Amino acid sequence: MKHLISIADLTADEITGLMDEADRFVAVLKNREIKKLPTLRGKTIFTLFYENSTRTRSSFETAGKWMSADVINISASSSSVAKGESLQDTGLTLKAVGADAIIMRHPASGAPNQLARWVAPDGHGPSVINAGDGAHQHPTQALLDAVTMRQRLGDLSGRKIIIVGDCLHSRVVRSNVDLLTSLGNEVVLVAPNTLLPPGVGNWPVRTTCDFDAEIPDADVVMMLRVQAERMHGGFFPSHREYATSYGLSKARYAAMADHAIVMHPGPMLRGMEINYAVADKDKTAVLQQVNNGVHVRMAVLFTLLAADSTL
Amino acid sequence: MKHLISIADLTADEITGLMDEADRFVAVLKNREIKKLPTLRGKTIFTLFYENSTRTRSSFETAGKWMSADVINISASSSSVAKGESLQDTGLTLKAVGADAIIMRHPASGAPNQLARWVAPDGHGPSVINAGDGAHQHPTQALLDAVTMRQRLGDLSGRKIIIVGDCLHSRVVRSNVDLLTSLGNEVVLVAPNTLLPPGVGNWPVRTTCDFDAEIPDADVVMMLRVQAERMHGGFFPSHREYATSYGLSKARYAAMADHAIVMHPGPMLRGMEINYAVADKDKTAVLQQVNNGVHVRMAVLFTLLAADSTL
Amino acid sequence: MKHLISIADLTADEITGLMDEADRFVAVLKNREIKKLPTLRGKTIFTLFYENSTRTRSSFETAGKWMSADVINISASSSSVAKGESLQDTGLTLKAVGADAIIMRHPASGAPNQLARWVAPDGHGPSVINAGDGAHQHPTQALLDAVTMRQRLGDLSGRKIIIVGDCLHSRVVRSNVDLLTSLGNEVVLVAPNTLLPPGVGNWPVRTTCDFDAEIPDADVVMMLRVQAERMHGGFFPSHREYATSYGLSKARYAAMADHAIVMHPGPMLRGMEINYAVADKDKTAVLQQVNNGVHVRMAVLFTLLAADSTL
Repeated sequence: MKHLISIADLTADEITGLMDEADRFVAVLKNREIKKLPTLRGKTIFTLFYENSTRTRSSFETAGKWMSADVINISASSSSVAKGESLQDTGLTLKAVGADAIIMRHPASGAPNQLARWVAPDGHGPSVINAGDGAHQHPTQALLDAVTMRQRLGDLSGRKIIIVGDCLHSRVVRSNVDLLTSLGNEVVLVAPNTLLPPGVGNWPVRTTCDFDAEIPDADVVMMLRVQAERMHGGFFPSHREYATSYGLSKARYAAMADHAIVMHPGPMLRGMEINYAVADKDKTAVLQQVNNGVHVRMAVLFTLLAADSTL
Repeated sequence: MKHLISIADLTADEITGLMDEADRFVAVLKNREIKKLPTLRGKTIFTLFYENSTRTRSSFETAGKWMSADVINISASSSSVAKGESLQDTGLTLKAVGADAIIMRHPASGAPNQLARWVAPDGHGPSVINAGDGAHQHPTQALLDAVTMRQRLGDLSGRKIIIVGDCLHSRVVRSNVDLLTSLGNEVVLVAPNTLLPPGVGNWPVRTTCDFDAEIPDADVVMMLRVQAERMHGGFFPSHREYATSYGLSKARYAAMADHAIVMHPGPMLRGMEINYAVADKDKTAVLQQVNNGVHVRMAVLFTLLAADSTL
Repeated sequence: MKHLISIADLTADEITGLMDEADRFVAVLKNREIKKLPTLRGKTIFTLFYENSTRTRSSFETAGKWMSADVINISASSSSVAKGESLQDTGLTLKAVGADAIIMRHPASGAPNQLARWVAPDGHGPSVINAGDGAHQHPTQALLDAVTMRQRLGDLSGRKIIIVGDCLHSRVVRSNVDLLTSLGNEVVLVAPNTLLPPGVGNWPVRTTCDFDAEIPDADVVMMLRVQAERMHGGFFPSHREYATSYGLSKARYAAMADHAIVMHPGPMLRGMEINYAVADKDKTAVLQQVNNGVHVRMAVLFTLLAADSTL
């Protein structure tokens, strides 16, 4: 594996391989007094973020540092982009500086894929890791979600996962649909038609706007972040309508099966997407997701940069 | 000691314990060719700054790195706060990522205290270190001030410290009053009534607006930064009035006792708070304060994160 | 060598010494499985950038980290400058925090020189490295250019180098003229009169606005970045005029000698300064320049901070 751009590029075996590797890092770190591995010593990792993200950037930075890599952060506002440099030249510059990996978040779908072609046209060059591109993919998010589900539910196949809310603007949806259906699960998108992605008719999912009907037999209720900043005009529900129809209320939480879990990619808008109290309840796995994020990113960096060396 | 939120939480013994530890780090580093200790290897420290500060953030970052911790910086402008995430969820996220300590600066008084309750409700979880909250506390500043005074003056009790200027907006004042009176010193606040904090009548200090009368028998003249950006309207002195009444002129410097010292938490506004030349004179301990800042922060991080291991 | 402020401060021997050191780092890193040297372990390096630069800042940060230094980044927007602190006090603060080196970019010519006087008035104190000051100097850029020329062309004396475009606003020009003429090369500036620096009549260079006439016997065609943001008013060529008269078109590339090379300090504006395709051709050494940037900065940091220790 050279890059991680999209879950759709991975076989089911590669997906479970990365998930197993993440679980292995959980175990390795638990048994060490000093939580620092020499695995990526001498590797240079750039984070290149054209959109802000505390959560994802610091999770990758932590993963890299725990494996002794050098991590160098570049944010778009302070980059040469402001001077008119193309993405291609920015990528080639980081390659020339000595990047072993470039972790990229970009508002345009497809940007990390382009970057990978530019910096490693013949398969040689830095690995590119997609940390979220437009409304397209966020593969490490889907992997950490899957690791969390498997830790909570056991075997991750034949499960029913409902994904609720703003599916149109979410980069989390597509990665999760790809991963979960690849492993043989049922996925239902719960959203109004105006918040479903174009072309969803060709996806291997069912869609509905009746949240309540889907809850009782769901194994996972995955709430999405409302991308309020991208909702303009009359086609979208108001905040109150959204909370009423697609928020996870106490009543909906109570209607869930005993073994089922609640997930959210964060940051959560409590009181709109999810009830204030529900966000902290036992079935809610949000912080476990965050925690697994570091281990999944360690697994990805390890697999891309050091899989042939010893841990 | 689990957190460091306020000097008022510390006993006199705990205060002098941290001061002694800081002096010990001065000695340890002086004797090492390579200024890098393995003390906090494998510890992960987040700086979470909702206000900018070169001085404090880089001092903490240096302290952490000199003890081999991984230090990850988060500034509010690039954080999920912009997406509507609550402080509680930001804190819980950093805990889930794996933070051993969260060093926080926040414009609201009490924010670090709240954060500590959220991330370590039962005493387990990351340590929270207050790097300045509103006009409330800045405990490492008071500790570095005290270490500096003790290095310059010897025993730090029975001394007279005058704190001069904008006491209303200063987070330095309250921490210093708590610390200095706890160790048995006399503190005098020199400011116009409009620049005294509310409730100062209940503090164990004397207040006056006659700077000149207080100088001759003071052991320490501690100048404050004028928070010009927070002074609006007619209740506050003009810049010229401020400099005349509360600036440390050459004449005032000359009126100080031979052994007395000048302090300033920085950044200094030369020409207003302090005469250009006075800022560099022998009695002025400003740079020694900055230098002690690193050692105090090493002492705090060591005490909170590693006190039970060996140096 | 204590500081690196200007190429004009260096003898020809010191210049070639730094170039040789850079080449030695190329060789050292090529032979190591793990690209990490212990050379600067325990050294603390601050980058203090009053202007943004992905390229230069991340190159220095990489150089420092590959030699195991602690690197702490400070950008002007988040610094105490916003609170009115003088450059002098910022420098003295970083010295007091424990800086071994301060790498500084500043819009004002001469600022790094002033900083060096302030922080090391008697030769003791942190080393100051100029990472670009106004339109004055950018010494590591000139060194990496020279290393690249020598790698491509062999012996670097008696060569003809033409520097093309916005010589007025470029900090690269002066450093390169100083270095290249010091080593015995011929330098020609190709620019309209309105884009030549004041006082160029006293420089040891020839000037012309006829690009085409200079190409055939040039060993190096060094293109400059158009500082479009600094070109206001009618004295400057339009973008189209600039591209026509001073852009490196395919025809001009074809007119170059077989052994000659194209250089550009980056970031490139393809389509204006340089033809889209020409930027990627064999004679173009732009990415080799970037790559050498890390090695030159390692050489500079090593020479200033550790030349008396063993590698």
